[in-house]
Amino acid sequence: MQIVIALFDRFASLDAVGPYQVFTHLPGAKVIFSSERAGLVCDESGSLALRAEASYQDVPSPDVILVPGGPGQAGQMAPSPLTDWLIAADKTSTWTTSVCTGSLILASAGLLAGREATTYWTAHGELGRLGATPRQERYVFDGKYVTSAGVSAGIDMALALCGKIAGDDVAQQIQLGIEYDPQPPYSAGSPATAPSAVVAALSAASRFGRD
Amino acid sequence: MQIVIALFDRFASLDAVGPYQVFTHLPGAKVIFSSERAGLVCDESGSLALRAEASYQDVPSPDVILVPGGPGQAGQMAPSPLTDWLIAADKTSTWTTSVCTGSLILASAGLLAGREATTYWTAHGELGRLGATPRQERYVFDGKYVTSAGVSAGIDMALALCGKIAGDDVAQQIQLGIEYDPQPPYSAGSPATAPSAVVAALSAASRFGRD
Repeated sequence: MQIVIALFDRFASLDAVGPYQVFTHLPGAKVIFSSERAGLVCDESGSLALRAEASYQDVPSPDVILVPGGPGQAGQMAPSPLTDWLIAADKTSTWTTSVCTGSLILASAGLLAGREATTYWTAHGELGRLGATPRQERYVFDGKYVTSAGVSAGIDMALALCGKIAGDDVAQQIQLGIEYDPQPPYSAGSPATAPSAVVAALSAASRFGRD
Repeated sequence: MQIVIALFDRFASLDAVGPYQVFTHLPGAKVIFSSERAGLVCDESGSLALRAEASYQDVPSPDVILVPGGPGQAGQMAPSPLTDWLIAADKTSTWTTSVCTGSLILASAGLLAGREATTYWTAHGELGRLGATPRQERYVFDGKYVTSAGVSAGIDMALALCGKIAGDDVAQQIQLGIEYDPQPPYSAGSPATAPSAVVAALSAASRFGRD
């Protein structure tokens, strides 16, 4: 099973590496980072560079596609080399997935039209404008399309997807293997639970405004 | 504030990138990946390669040191270029931290002698043999030494550390910024909650045996 994670300039590193760490323990899976051109791709801060070992053309028909988000999402909307590849690769994929604002890229490629999906918490309105039906969920399965909420949600989505692909026992082994027993020191991970001043500060800084 | 994440061959990617994603949003922080030599460093599966932009010699006095774990930990125990650097850099660091079996490297360098610390759930016995006092906690602060449980625990530890460095409000903004509202699809992230067959399978595969 080939799993391709698409990278682009200014992606959010945890969007890609959270699911990667999960998938890399999936029996029989080969995870490949790809980008428009093979080579190093820098994240949103520029301090992290991940190697894309393949170009999009090198991996025309993955079994699983994963598109991360991050500030660079805005430069990847259709038409772009990424969305051209997505439209073609999606025709034969078993699962087409995203993390955070990666779902905006899927939607701009026309892959989420009329489908339920989720995204980063400030981008639900934008996802709706792109033709999907936004859902306030950690991750959303709609047919073969699986979208996740912001950044860290990709870990939850990837574990759930491993359960669908390989069964609950394997997914639970992967969860224990990464000791994923989260204990955040604050209850600030959702706009529903974070202090209102924290929500206001992040909303004000959002590229998408208040939704 | 300079934060240096030490990389080595066969590290666990999420050990490094989880905290990286948190620290990169810390105001005034510059995060640098370093390794024995600057260049690409491959993770445990070999499919992921991260760029170390600095050698250890290039970053002799970080404010914060982070050592990840992973299967490659066994090759980094003292004496090694990594532990030589750690012993020197720790003399001036404000915080010396680890994720997963990274604490075994800190302990082998003599930095955790008599201190309370934690590590990957199968490695508590080994941590004790190396002179630390193992604690069954998600992360443990003992003076300036901060150690975390396995792989994903580095996210929790990094958020807690950001709270100590920059205050609760900043740490909560970072948490909401990465939408860290974890909702694992299973309750299998700890040996205390995972099904016994899952615990047995992982224990049998552990490099450290049953502790």
